[in-house]
Formats: sequence, C-alpha cells, structure tokens
Amino acid sequence: MTDVPPPDNLMLARIRIVLVETSHPGNLGAAARAMKVMGLSRLHLVAPRCAIDDEARARASGAVDVLDGAVTCADLDEALAGTVLAAACTSRRRDLPHPAYTPRQAAPGMLSAARQGDVALVYGSETYGLSNDQLARCRWLINIPANPGYMSLNLGAAVQVLAYELRSCLEDAVIPLPEFEAARHEEVEALLAELERSLTDIGFLDPRHPKRLMPRLRRFFARAGLEKEEVAIWRGVLTAMRQGRREGG
Amino acid sequence: MTDVPPPDNLMLARIRIVLVETSHPGNLGAAARAMKVMGLSRLHLVAPRCAIDDEARARASGAVDVLDGAVTCADLDEALAGTVLAAACTSRRRDLPHPAYTPRQAAPGMLSAARQGDVALVYGSETYGLSNDQLARCRWLINIPANPGYMSLNLGAAVQVLAYELRSCLEDAVIPLPEFEAARHEEVEALLAELERSLTDIGFLDPRHPKRLMPRLRRFFARAGLEKEEVAIWRGVLTAMRQGRREGG
Repeated sequence: MTDVPPPDNLMLARIRIVLVETSHPGNLGAAARAMKVMGLSRLHLVAPRCAIDDEARARASGAVDVLDGAVTCADLDEALAGTVLAAACTSRRRDLPHPAYTPRQAAPGMLSAARQGDVALVYGSETYGLSNDQLARCRWLINIPANPGYMSLNLGAAVQVLAYELRSCLEDAVIPLPEFEAARHEEVEALLAELERSLTDIGFLDPRHPKRLMPRLRRFFARAGLEKEEVAIWRGVLTAMRQGRREGG
Repeated sequence: MTDVPPPDNLMLARIRIVLVETSHPGNLGAAARAMKVMGLSRLHLVAPRCAIDDEARARASGAVDVLDGAVTCADLDEALAGTVLAAACTSRRRDLPHPAYTPRQAAPGMLSAARQGDVALVYGSETYGLSNDQLARCRWLINIPANPGYMSLNLGAAVQVLAYELRSCLEDAVIPLPEFEAARHEEVEALLAELERSLTDIGFLDPRHPKRLMPRLRRFFARAGLEKEEVAIWRGVLTAMRQGRREGG
C-alpha cells in the first residue's frame, strides 16, 4: 500500500469482472462492452462453457480488446487470487449469511478497497448462478433491485449496472463547473420590474386588479434560474413589445 | 390530479420508453427485458428500422409481452403526446442548450412528474442518435457517465441503466409530491409556436435571420418546466403583445 492513493482511473483498473461458467458468447461480448464503456478493463473467465467467438466479438463492438485480454481460470480461487475484496452479484439473499448490499451501497466500499489492491466482482452462470461453495468465497453479496414479478436480469445488463455504479460513484465526488454565467440578483429584479411595466403598458396587467400575475411570473423565472444572456434576450423582447404598443397608442 | 398519489408501481407504469429509429432487433428485445426486470412496461417505437423478429423475441426472454404491447408511432410528437415530461438519453451535451442530468440526478424528478402524468424517456437510433429537432422536443437531457475513451453504450444497456435508476430511486427515496399541474407536451409545443409567431409579429424575430433566439428561449422554458396555468398566462401575454402590434400597424 502506497502513501498516495492512485488516481481514479487506477481504481477502476483494479476492479476485475469475474464471469463463472458463462454459456452464451453474446453475454461475454456484452459484458466486455459494458465494462469498457465505464472504464473497466480486466475480465476473468472461470471455466467458461463457451468460446470467445464471432458473436462475442460482434456484441463487444469496440471492446474486443477487453475480450482479447481476458484471463481464463480453472476455478474461482484462481480468479480471486490477489484480491482484497470479492463481491458476488446475485439474486439470492435470504438463505445466505453474507452481508448484502445494493449496487449503490456497495460501490463506495469497492472503490475504497481498490485503493489498497485488486477487487473482484463475481457473476455466476446464466442458468445456475453461483454455487454455495463459490458464494462462500466472496465477502459481500450484491443484490440488484428488480421487479419481484420478473427478476431475470441479463448477465451483460447486470455487469452494466455495477460498472455504471462504480463509475458514477467516482464521478459524483466531483463538483461540475457551471457552464453559463448566472444573472445577479439585481439584474433579475430589474428585469422583473421591466416585465411588470411592459405588461401594464400593453394592457395585460391592470395595476388596480393585479391578481396573482406577477407572483406567478416571478415564481416561473425563479424556477428557471436566469443567465446573464437570457436577461438580455428578455429585455430585448420587452422593448419590442412596448414599441408595438407605443406605435399603436 | 387525484388527492392520493398513485402507488409506486403505477409511477413506473407511467414511464414510457421511446426508441427512435432503432435498427437492430436484438436491441428491441434487450430493451424490453431491461424494462420488465425493473418494472417498466410501456414501449413506444418511432419509425422503427427493423421488425420485432425472432432475434428480438429471443433477447427479450421473459419480456416478450413488453414487445407485443409496443406502440408504433410515425414521429416523435406522436410518441410524446400526453406526456408531462420528456427526457432524452444521449451522449451529446456541450453543443446543446438543454439542462443535462446524470441518471441519478434525473430519476427523482422523473418519478415526481410521473405522479401527475405520463413521462417519456427517449433514445435515438444506434447509428445517428437523435436529431437536433428531436432533442429540441425533449425538456431534459440525460447523460450516462461513461469512459471518455469509449462512450459507445449499447442501446439495451442504456435502457437498463435508466430503468435501474428509476427503480432504485423508488426503493431508496422519498419522491417529492408535485405542487402544480404540469403542462402536456403538445401544450408546450403550441405555446412555443405562438411565441415564435408573436416575436415575428412585433418585429423582434427576423425569420430571415433568426439567429439562436428560439433555441435559447426553448431552452429557458424547458429549464423552468411549464405548468398548465403558466401556459395560460403566457398565452395571455402573447395575445396582448400582438394586439399592441396590430393597433400600431
């Protein structure tokens, strides 16, 4: 363990996806694509029941490099060697003694563990899932929330959900810079005052019976949140509006 | 709007997935399965470039009922008719003026809107995505976090991520109750069309040199999110604006 934590991409690079006894080549490809699109790259295949064939490559699309770099292992222990945390993604829960988390609950802990060493995320076969013996080798269970009436998540989709959670967890810690310049309080107030005068000018607002018009418009503008440029646009609209009235008056 | 908010499953039932010009049958099936496993059921296909064939049904697995219930539409407006919120899932961002959210940021607002009416989640074609005109008809953009070096999320996987977020949000969080009645898609489009005509009438918008005025205003209204009453207020403002011009002309 180093003193300085690795940068974010290194944390994702330390998370390996372990697919146990997968039988459909399309799922290998889908898993590879799901991984790469979220910045994961290390794929381990435990006793695969299918080859990395044309269908797998087609479904991998631009992530064929992840398939080509896949490490094939004889059993789960081999695939988990060197890891500091192994989490099994499964729909089983009640009959098992493991701590069980949702993907959202699990992601921070997985990334935190990845600061220290390699982390494995383990998926069972499409038909049989993981055996009790295989589950016993994983420290955590992860249960993806699902419709109780139809819990049959596709393997590639299940990899996508966890990979997405891991990346989201990394990115959420960063506060995005605003892309536009917000208008200042006094600019917004000046615009609203000009709006009120303009609506009075064109006869839409009756100052003796204003009803709730201005509070409603104020609320609308507040909800949108005005940018500097938008204030300028609206002031232009109001000027044109009043000129129409003056020419008519 | 009823006094009693609908139960959670009804909120998911009000969220329609809109796939525009999809070309691969396998993606239709994967999207249907991704939907059903998270409790979504309503699928709209806009001008599909492929049929619901054997490959689509195979990939749908136990979600063939979602495919069979899909509604085919000629254009996006038809698919969005009656919705109170349309959000486009896209990898585009910087060149567009819409408010952009991550799936996690967007999910609570989508579910809140679904308390009031139907909500659409829109996906473009695998090759071309959504056109500017199609994006302009959606109020929000949703950007799934992705690896900058390989952003090519599979369509079915993108549906899976959003459907997962919506279900997770329901299971994790309290959805805020909407306080006002949201305007429908077609009401908002009609208002924007009237705004454009009115600004042309009063000489503020030059149809020969429209510049970026309408896209900027469209963006502003999208960010605010219009309520039914506000549509009525703005239409009143526009009528008064045009009358001023007519009296002057």
